[in-house]
Amino acid sequence: MDKQIIVFGGDGFCGWPTALFLSKHGYDVTIVDNLSRRKIDIELGCQSLTPVTDIYTRIKIWENVAGKKIRFELIDISEHYHRIYSLIKEIKPMAVVHFAEQRAAPYSMKSPFHKRYTVNNNINATHNILCAIVESGLDIHVIHLGTTGVYGYGDAGMEIPEGYLKAKVDMDGEEKEIEILYPANPGSIYHMTKTQDALLFFYYNKNNQVRITDLHQGIVWGTNTDETMMEDKLINRFDYDGDYGTVLNRFLMQAAIGHPLTIHGTGGQTRAFIHIKDTVQCIRIAIENPPLGGDRVKIFNQATETHKVRDLAKKISSMTGASLRFYKNPRNEDAQNDLKIANKKFLELGLNPITLNDGLMSEIYDIAKKYKKRCERDKIICTSTWRDDIEVDYIGSAENVHESN
Amino acid sequence: MDKQIIVFGGDGFCGWPTALFLSKHGYDVTIVDNLSRRKIDIELGCQSLTPVTDIYTRIKIWENVAGKKIRFELIDISEHYHRIYSLIKEIKPMAVVHFAEQRAAPYSMKSPFHKRYTVNNNINATHNILCAIVESGLDIHVIHLGTTGVYGYGDAGMEIPEGYLKAKVDMDGEEKEIEILYPANPGSIYHMTKTQDALLFFYYNKNNQVRITDLHQGIVWGTNTDETMMEDKLINRFDYDGDYGTVLNRFLMQAAIGHPLTIHGTGGQTRAFIHIKDTVQCIRIAIENPPLGGDRVKIFNQATETHKVRDLAKKISSMTGASLRFYKNPRNEDAQNDLKIANKKFLELGLNPITLNDGLMSEIYDIAKKYKKRCERDKIICTSTWRDDIEVDYIGSAENVHESN
Repeated sequence: MDKQIIVFGGDGFCGWPTALFLSKHGYDVTIVDNLSRRKIDIELGCQSLTPVTDIYTRIKIWENVAGKKIRFELIDISEHYHRIYSLIKEIKPMAVVHFAEQRAAPYSMKSPFHKRYTVNNNINATHNILCAIVESGLDIHVIHLGTTGVYGYGDAGMEIPEGYLKAKVDMDGEEKEIEILYPANPGSIYHMTKTQDALLFFYYNKNNQVRITDLHQGIVWGTNTDETMMEDKLINRFDYDGDYGTVLNRFLMQAAIGHPLTIHGTGGQTRAFIHIKDTVQCIRIAIENPPLGGDRVKIFNQATETHKVRDLAKKISSMTGASLRFYKNPRNEDAQNDLKIANKKFLELGLNPITLNDGLMSEIYDIAKKYKKRCERDKIICTSTWRDDIEVDYIGSAENVHESN
Repeated sequence: MDKQIIVFGGDGFCGWPTALFLSKHGYDVTIVDNLSRRKIDIELGCQSLTPVTDIYTRIKIWENVAGKKIRFELIDISEHYHRIYSLIKEIKPMAVVHFAEQRAAPYSMKSPFHKRYTVNNNINATHNILCAIVESGLDIHVIHLGTTGVYGYGDAGMEIPEGYLKAKVDMDGEEKEIEILYPANPGSIYHMTKTQDALLFFYYNKNNQVRITDLHQGIVWGTNTDETMMEDKLINRFDYDGDYGTVLNRFLMQAAIGHPLTIHGTGGQTRAFIHIKDTVQCIRIAIENPPLGGDRVKIFNQATETHKVRDLAKKISSMTGASLRFYKNPRNEDAQNDLKIANKKFLELGLNPITLNDGLMSEIYDIAKKYKKRCERDKIICTSTWRDDIEVDYIGSAENVHESN
């Protein structure tokens, strides 16, 4: 039993397929989750487009289908430190995978309550894991799901490196080269918590030599993996609402129900993407290529390609016939940006990336069509704005009127 | 009534003299404090060397002596968001001064409980203030007490600038100059929370244009100011214990009671210092020189000089006849470091710095002698270690045996 893994947040959109993938590939998986994502569904009055079975049933089905046991512990890790500590002491995992954070930028910006919840939850969750590992005295590899958004979406003018940046600074009149953490430039409260996480990682790695891999993930698209497709009731979440839905999945679902594609602002934003099947592969690669004792925090960019939002909309429009519609951007961000992201490390370690293709987009489109009667149309528009003086645009425009913004 | 100020943490070592100084100089001061520092005295079984009167009495005495009212609100700002929000809406302060964080590095490292308390308390306190200001819609200047320690005490090899660093980076083969936040390198959980605060400031300034001044303060020495000396019961705290005592005050108090001066490691650590009378001046200068709307976060180094710990010990030894004693360093830090800190900004704005002098050191020495029977000798040694594998050294050595560390 030396391949024990804890997946914190293992009931969520990335966590569930990761738990199954690791279980399938020989790891003994324990899922720790407070089921907060399901409870937020209740708060928002909007459920996953796909019908997600309760955690107890889906674990039982996995056991029947795959012949593998997954243990589940209902723990709020931002609160119940001693339960994490005891679990770590008991299981002695070789690695923990940390998805257990509030992960939607729009949700983090909805109100003071949501800002405060996101900061309190995310920082305490990450800190409790690190603190418990140090208290346990065990040498456990921490794999954290971060975001490419920690660096902001301005025009950096350079390829975003994997974590560290070489820079020349003046030291008493002499120019010297130093290597620093790539400067953070978060675009929302959610993104900000991820930049604060990076400081927790830096400190615990420096003071206690905790071995840490921080994965800066792009926007995940897709919904199912080989494992979640083994039985209907293993199906993964599919979020389409204005808070939790992510752009590519949202567009495909909008096309499926005959809603115009909701482009924010000019649609000139460039974002990094990764398919959910690659997410689970990357996590396995990260587990199997841990930093050595004494290594600094290992940072990977977990993204396989970049696209402008507008170009994605056009692609889906020509595939499905959906119309485009431009809404005033609820976010406080540049109207346009370019983005280049280094992602050599995963490629060198064997990732064979899935890039945008009509086959996989059709698969998502088909799922969206299959479940379209579950859609609440009035949850599609993003009503969370980055500042009180930004009005929600419920109407939109057929023309790209924001081009000059 | 347009000179309203809220002093968060106004019952503490820096907060109390600041509140009195601002009250004296024409500001209407409201102190908000949860009295946590007094409660930690109970936890640690060790009180301020000086007898500190309860907050209700000392405010009444201030009113009698100075003819100025100070309002006090007992609020835990890391918890009770809505009470801060209501207070801000009611008072409409021109500025808030934020001292309301757990401020001792050794305390933050005592145990998992203390690490978790420090992270949770400090991050939520700072975030709640910023969030409440944005929700209030008021344009309020936030002045935060940070630390020179956010940059670590390695040998930077350059003068530490006031917040921002110019660096040259390679952008697709072309060298370009950028300006970044000086890279953080925290030395304890406490210091780490201050680096996380910096990201909160960066984000709220960027997204909501909150006007913020972050003061990176050196180690404060001294105890009284002109105001706290106006009446016995206005006296300020004097911490000497291993958790909350700071180095120069500790040495003077140790000399006063005939305890050898407790040097950690080689004593080769260089630190930045400021006298408490300059702290209160700097805060007034910061209030009166706010950033303009749209300005980035203003960062000042609030320190007037640097010294090696060993040199301070020698100085006090020759002044008082105290002996030196070298203890294994409880901290995980370099045995030696140099430190140069830019502090032009406060000097340009009129600060006339008080530097280390025999007169002021004698004044502290006299206070320590006056109250020496209040000292608990067994609280002097620092028993909080940075890692479990660092043993507490209760004995020490007359020789500097750690020199080669």
